[in-house]
Amino acid sequence: MKGKLIGVGLGPGDPELMTLKAHRLIAGARVVAYPALENGESFARSIAAQSIPPNADEIIINIPMTVERGPAQAAYDKGAADIAVQLDKGENVVVLCEGDPFFYGSFMYLFSRLADEYETDIVPGVTSVTTCAAMAKRPLTARNDVLAIIPGPLGSDDMRTRIEAAGAVAIMKVGRHLGRIRALLSDMGLSENATYVARASLPSQQVLPLERAPDPAPYFSMILITKGEDPWLS
Amino acid sequence: MKGKLIGVGLGPGDPELMTLKAHRLIAGARVVAYPALENGESFARSIAAQSIPPNADEIIINIPMTVERGPAQAAYDKGAADIAVQLDKGENVVVLCEGDPFFYGSFMYLFSRLADEYETDIVPGVTSVTTCAAMAKRPLTARNDVLAIIPGPLGSDDMRTRIEAAGAVAIMKVGRHLGRIRALLSDMGLSENATYVARASLPSQQVLPLERAPDPAPYFSMILITKGEDPWLS
Repeated sequence: MKGKLIGVGLGPGDPELMTLKAHRLIAGARVVAYPALENGESFARSIAAQSIPPNADEIIINIPMTVERGPAQAAYDKGAADIAVQLDKGENVVVLCEGDPFFYGSFMYLFSRLADEYETDIVPGVTSVTTCAAMAKRPLTARNDVLAIIPGPLGSDDMRTRIEAAGAVAIMKVGRHLGRIRALLSDMGLSENATYVARASLPSQQVLPLERAPDPAPYFSMILITKGEDPWLS
Repeated sequence: MKGKLIGVGLGPGDPELMTLKAHRLIAGARVVAYPALENGESFARSIAAQSIPPNADEIIINIPMTVERGPAQAAYDKGAADIAVQLDKGENVVVLCEGDPFFYGSFMYLFSRLADEYETDIVPGVTSVTTCAAMAKRPLTARNDVLAIIPGPLGSDDMRTRIEAAGAVAIMKVGRHLGRIRALLSDMGLSENATYVARASLPSQQVLPLERAPDPAPYFSMILITKGEDPWLS
């Protein structure tokens, strides 16, 4: 009897924004796995730290931060192999995933390598998108609004088209693209509709009008754009 | 000293998908408020039922299901007034919100009426979008994918344009629009990329290829579309 691969969303960073199910599964885990930087730091582990049993086995997947994809993919190959050893022994493996496992998460690299051979279970988590809206106190979408979620690295022309078409926009992974995106939104006359949120739900959280956002921004930062004066209230 | 208006996301329906924070705030509440149908049924209350203290005051906001907006808006006027009575007495009021308070939720109608006068706190919740992806075991977005979230009532021409432009699409509130949307996706050659999910995370959950989905679909149903064979794995 093989073990099950369980991808657990941890939410945006505040450990209290984990779901009851995430906490239960982690607290009952004999084996957990998570990505970490080369220096060993793991945001995922830090969110779940209080829930991980002290005697759990920990599979650490060290992801090299390179521009090329090869080294990271090799790290996922090794991580998947380490996880498979445990699954083959009949142990369930709980993979700790920042945010939601299937929403811009690295879990899918493990899922793609293991889901054909092993039973899987996915526990959704609170995403940074709605967390940023909550922290900025800006309702995101109502009624028949279309919401576009756009990664910051997207080219400016493409980004402009998508922002024009949507009722509300969340631009993720802003980081070093902040200056370019800020200029684009200014050019579109949308500066005053844009709010910047960094590290939502963490003690170091920042919520600022886009004009006052730091450049470059941290990786975990987002720009929210809503249009019209109060589109959701009329 | 006035009380605080606290909008709490409850997640998609499984009570275990509430956050630890939602559970703590509800379990400690002296006053909760929630929307209900005219017959008294409340999906929000049913999700939170096990967390609500037996002696909590409950403010029920009965929302008439009419096509015109007037009667529902009048119900929110009354609900906001009832909540304000408690806030003025210094009581915090925990508003129970299906999913996430600021993501297509009715909480914003209360927020818009009360946020200027009272302190507020918003607790984000797991949305139906990532829950549907989890239950369908379909990774939603990776890397630089653009995700479009589209309400089902949107017109077909508009919907087509947005689906063409996005890397991944979630169509919410499918309901009676299922037949029309299914025909559109078939015409676009995307039928095989589309998965239907209804009542995600509830015991009555259904996950089906779109071709086999019931028409009309229930209100709480969604169509997920991903493009290419395995866009997130290459």
